[in-house]
Amino acid sequence: MIKRKKTKAVKVGNVTIGSASPIVVQSMTKVSTQDVGKCVKQVNQLAQAGCKLVRIAVPTKADTAAFAKIVQKVKIPLIADIHFSAQRAIEAIEAGAAKIRLNPGNIKNRKDIFRIIDAAKMHDTAIRIGVNEASIRDLKQDNVSADKRVGLMLKELKQYVTLFESRDFENIVLSAKSSNTARTIEVNRLISNTFQYPIHLGLTHAGLCEDAQIPSAVCLGSLLSEGIGDTVRISIAGNPVVEVGVARSILLSLGLVERQEPEIIVCPTCGRTQIDVVKLAKKVKKAVSECQKPLRIAVMGCFVNGPGEAADADLAICGGKGKAYIYKKGKKTAVVPEAVIIETVLQLIDKF
Amino acid sequence: MIKRKKTKAVKVGNVTIGSASPIVVQSMTKVSTQDVGKCVKQVNQLAQAGCKLVRIAVPTKADTAAFAKIVQKVKIPLIADIHFSAQRAIEAIEAGAAKIRLNPGNIKNRKDIFRIIDAAKMHDTAIRIGVNEASIRDLKQDNVSADKRVGLMLKELKQYVTLFESRDFENIVLSAKSSNTARTIEVNRLISNTFQYPIHLGLTHAGLCEDAQIPSAVCLGSLLSEGIGDTVRISIAGNPVVEVGVARSILLSLGLVERQEPEIIVCPTCGRTQIDVVKLAKKVKKAVSECQKPLRIAVMGCFVNGPGEAADADLAICGGKGKAYIYKKGKKTAVVPEAVIIETVLQLIDKF
Repeated sequence: MIKRKKTKAVKVGNVTIGSASPIVVQSMTKVSTQDVGKCVKQVNQLAQAGCKLVRIAVPTKADTAAFAKIVQKVKIPLIADIHFSAQRAIEAIEAGAAKIRLNPGNIKNRKDIFRIIDAAKMHDTAIRIGVNEASIRDLKQDNVSADKRVGLMLKELKQYVTLFESRDFENIVLSAKSSNTARTIEVNRLISNTFQYPIHLGLTHAGLCEDAQIPSAVCLGSLLSEGIGDTVRISIAGNPVVEVGVARSILLSLGLVERQEPEIIVCPTCGRTQIDVVKLAKKVKKAVSECQKPLRIAVMGCFVNGPGEAADADLAICGGKGKAYIYKKGKKTAVVPEAVIIETVLQLIDKF
Repeated sequence: MIKRKKTKAVKVGNVTIGSASPIVVQSMTKVSTQDVGKCVKQVNQLAQAGCKLVRIAVPTKADTAAFAKIVQKVKIPLIADIHFSAQRAIEAIEAGAAKIRLNPGNIKNRKDIFRIIDAAKMHDTAIRIGVNEASIRDLKQDNVSADKRVGLMLKELKQYVTLFESRDFENIVLSAKSSNTARTIEVNRLISNTFQYPIHLGLTHAGLCEDAQIPSAVCLGSLLSEGIGDTVRISIAGNPVVEVGVARSILLSLGLVERQEPEIIVCPTCGRTQIDVVKLAKKVKKAVSECQKPLRIAVMGCFVNGPGEAADADLAICGGKGKAYIYKKGKKTAVVPEAVIIETVLQLIDKF
């Protein structure tokens, strides 16, 4: 259903960002980089959760030294997060970063930027050029309109891209971030219309998990639904594995990643409902928690809407007073008392 | 930032859907309609939470009788949810429904549809013409492509609109729903390009709260970010007040509703972080939970990124080892030990 915008392919170690490659989920370690053991453990946890690239902050020389060790000990490509130091960037590239994330606006000297580019060329390292709304100088005042803010982000990005291309470097991923959802959506639409480089999507500082999920889903979902975005990172304060889960849910909801487990759709219930739908849905969810079949299972609260609405599901449980009709691919296959609903559903799942 | 698509204004009691009116949040009662007391209580809870319209199922004659009593006892306009019965629709209209929700595909007789339209005209009742992917006959088979499914939903909606217009009735809100996020987005884009009537957005059977939030935010957020959608309902199994909260968060994230409380943005933390950001953010959130000022408060984990990134916030707390720098509108105003961060922040908030 979603037609992805055409972008160039950029290699990041053995992972490809852009072109026809699946959208790459990435995250970031949140333990001290110098604690190599902890860092390696977190990278592995992220990889296990489906994260394809992990970014690591390298603020000091001791961090790039640790980064070099971490690279050796993990199986997925790593990205070094660079801030104000060209020297750190070069150290990270030499340490084996498959990609670095750089805001060129934070590197004062153009010669230093060229030194970074040259090192990246030599080591076949990709560079994400990351612009942040908050670090654009002209925006550090009130009353700058949303349109102007977005325009300035794009303008800054254009300047950097021109600079990198002038040095004959095109191994580039682009990003422009803001903690404002609407502006992040708009600037990325413009970036997608302007460049052919792959786009990294993220919403800065989204917040605590309970506050971050919705704005992140709105922001990234909007762009992804328009075919924009080649790699995503969800920013949530706390355990980064949660970020990967949210990213995956967003991609799943748009059919941009293949489902490997059942999807439980549940009617919201209404004045017609005659069964405790929430309780039943939770039971079904628990019962299939180990199942690895991408089945669509509908839990419906009535016989009025239920059967029709659930016709699209592989299995539908339409609850009534003390019993349920079970539908398989839209066809009624059983009427069972409430007590054996789960058992019946599990038997049917086995046959799929 | 978001330019809403132009739609007609449709009056639903004292609420306007469409045109320049704020996007209307609606929900549905989930207690038995015949339990008038419970129903009134739930309508009031929803209204208190910011819900402007509440829909109520009226499957039987006893339900429309109860509906008539509920209408008298609540202050916000009510919508009657009609399924297969023209008679119920007419009873609900006569009982004072400000709007009814109808899937004309479920009313077999064209004469019956005209009877409903005539009653709605007489009582100045709006009608939402609601098409559901699952109830379209041609779709009740596997292997119908996504494009075809979306096309069939639009085609069906067009037929109904033509029918209603032929009876000189334009007091119409349109919806097309599916439990598939990408198809719901696509069909609503087409509806917006085809009609001038206001659009009701919803994703059917999104699921339990923990599963429903992300697909709902992706789906409705995508459309709203493109200026599509005049009224929204989030479908979540469970307490409907939760639906209103999620709807509000989606609208807030896009700046489509005015914020009346602080927004806490939190850096996701990284290898640079020297303070427990999640703990601090939770403390800040708790401390300002009663505050009714729409302040933007940033909780950042380091001095490297923090100040620049938080420049856009009204207040920023940039944490370091055992202390924090506090920024007001991007300007450093205090350095305080960890123990008095909250106290200092609350004092600063008082002055805003």
